[in-house]
Amino acid sequence: MNHLFSIGIDIGGTNTDIGLVNDQGEVIAKQNLKTLQYSDHQLFVDDLVKAIQILVKDLDPASITGVGIGAPAANYYTGSIENATNLNMKGILPLRDMIHQQFPYPVVVTNDANAATYGEMIYGGAKGMKNFMMFTLGTGVGTGIVIDGKLVYGHDGLAGEMGHAILIPEGRPCGCGNKGCLEKYTSSSGIVWNCLELMPQYPDSILTKDVFHGMTGKNVSDAAKLGDPLAIATYERTGYLLGIALANAVTFSSPEAIFLMGGPIQAGDVFLDPIKRSFLKHKLFIFNRDIPILLSSLPENSVAILGAAALTR
Amino acid sequence: MNHLFSIGIDIGGTNTDIGLVNDQGEVIAKQNLKTLQYSDHQLFVDDLVKAIQILVKDLDPASITGVGIGAPAANYYTGSIENATNLNMKGILPLRDMIHQQFPYPVVVTNDANAATYGEMIYGGAKGMKNFMMFTLGTGVGTGIVIDGKLVYGHDGLAGEMGHAILIPEGRPCGCGNKGCLEKYTSSSGIVWNCLELMPQYPDSILTKDVFHGMTGKNVSDAAKLGDPLAIATYERTGYLLGIALANAVTFSSPEAIFLMGGPIQAGDVFLDPIKRSFLKHKLFIFNRDIPILLSSLPENSVAILGAAALTR
Repeated sequence: MNHLFSIGIDIGGTNTDIGLVNDQGEVIAKQNLKTLQYSDHQLFVDDLVKAIQILVKDLDPASITGVGIGAPAANYYTGSIENATNLNMKGILPLRDMIHQQFPYPVVVTNDANAATYGEMIYGGAKGMKNFMMFTLGTGVGTGIVIDGKLVYGHDGLAGEMGHAILIPEGRPCGCGNKGCLEKYTSSSGIVWNCLELMPQYPDSILTKDVFHGMTGKNVSDAAKLGDPLAIATYERTGYLLGIALANAVTFSSPEAIFLMGGPIQAGDVFLDPIKRSFLKHKLFIFNRDIPILLSSLPENSVAILGAAALTR
Repeated sequence: MNHLFSIGIDIGGTNTDIGLVNDQGEVIAKQNLKTLQYSDHQLFVDDLVKAIQILVKDLDPASITGVGIGAPAANYYTGSIENATNLNMKGILPLRDMIHQQFPYPVVVTNDANAATYGEMIYGGAKGMKNFMMFTLGTGVGTGIVIDGKLVYGHDGLAGEMGHAILIPEGRPCGCGNKGCLEKYTSSSGIVWNCLELMPQYPDSILTKDVFHGMTGKNVSDAAKLGDPLAIATYERTGYLLGIALANAVTFSSPEAIFLMGGPIQAGDVFLDPIKRSFLKHKLFIFNRDIPILLSSLPENSVAILGAAALTR
């Protein structure tokens, strides 16, 4: 039996993880680049190709299915990263074509949340589901949508950007130029912002001291574990808002389930319970089946690698 | 050459139109029922079947492709109308099965906005488009979504209910039980509500007298034609809000174009211009192609009949 191998790449704002994936869906070797250090397109691609070559050097070339890449603001159709707001590499980075020049295998590029969604479908809790969506919370909020068993790309290849659906018209300013985008309320920094808005009501919170040295989502999560009322109120508020966004998404595509992943979700039930409560409250009544809110069943640091790799098969 | 005929039915809150459609997509004969008069499921279905039989009585049974029905709160998978809020027939109406018992041809039931969307794709301005969506404004706001050339039904068959996506959290109460649904701001009655909210700023408006005898969307539209500043401000506000909803929908599925239809749209540029301006302002910048906002190219009173009929072919 001939085993097949794929390269899966997860390009994030801070780190780029490059994984060699076997046909059981296991990451068997890994390389890493510090994305933040690159502003030059060619230097980044050269180092990416070097990392790939290290991973595949002992493999039979015929056993390699290709390179799958999940990246912010990536366009599946053009194979480019297009004006990513959270990368130092600006403008249009024609990643697929640049890699393909040096590494003559199929190269597939998609949005990082799409890659994770695909990974969930092929290897995770969405196995067998034909209609679902995923919300990945982190620095931003990414989304991926599966309809009839296929990732939705849309006409311009840019579907699944619900982190920039406007939740609060004329709300908080967002890096995209709009105001009130979902991600300004439910990303890590959105959670901190929610916390700061609620802080005047909780002057005794242990979080009041964190304001002075740059509060993070982790501070809020740690405080919640200690039962801090401000932290708990913050997750209540965030869950309330995310629950509305999930109910809105259901009116669009009537999914079987919704998956959540990302750092903020690790806070656990203190966050999940209010999300589920708000979702149930706001879900349109005609959707009278239970639509479960599920956690990604794949390890956080490999789901996008696995999904990206699976796109090459 | 053997010609084929289909029955297309558009069930609305007030009227039910039953049309005989030929294979050129023309409605060649019509029947009508007053939906409001029916609260009994069986009586309604009996009269519907009688109307169908009148239309097909001179046709070769082999030339009939079936019956397609667009209806509020209709579920494509179950073939039922499920808890429609704007019909006197309550609960679950298993329309497909009840008609099929008396009329042994294929029967397809779908949401009225889906039927209109399908009609636009087969016979109208969306011919050849693989990814688009339609917003139908009227008593409520219906939506239909096409992805990869197929109507989206989703897991529970209830996709395309974006009229009940929450635009203003904790906003105006909606018949669905939620607050702030899109349709409370952009349906005919939503437009009247917007007008009433703005009225204190326009005490000299000719619309101030309409308050006393039940203002309608038509009053606002007529006043706009006369240049009334309140009417113009009302469409400005409504267009602003609808533009946000359209921009939000784009983040979901990256459509090639968005179609609009329905009574309020007939107000013309005084409404369309603010919709387009708000859409352009709020469309996420990565969607850097022009995504046209188009009017349905089909006659208002036949698009759902044509679409429903086309579903049987």
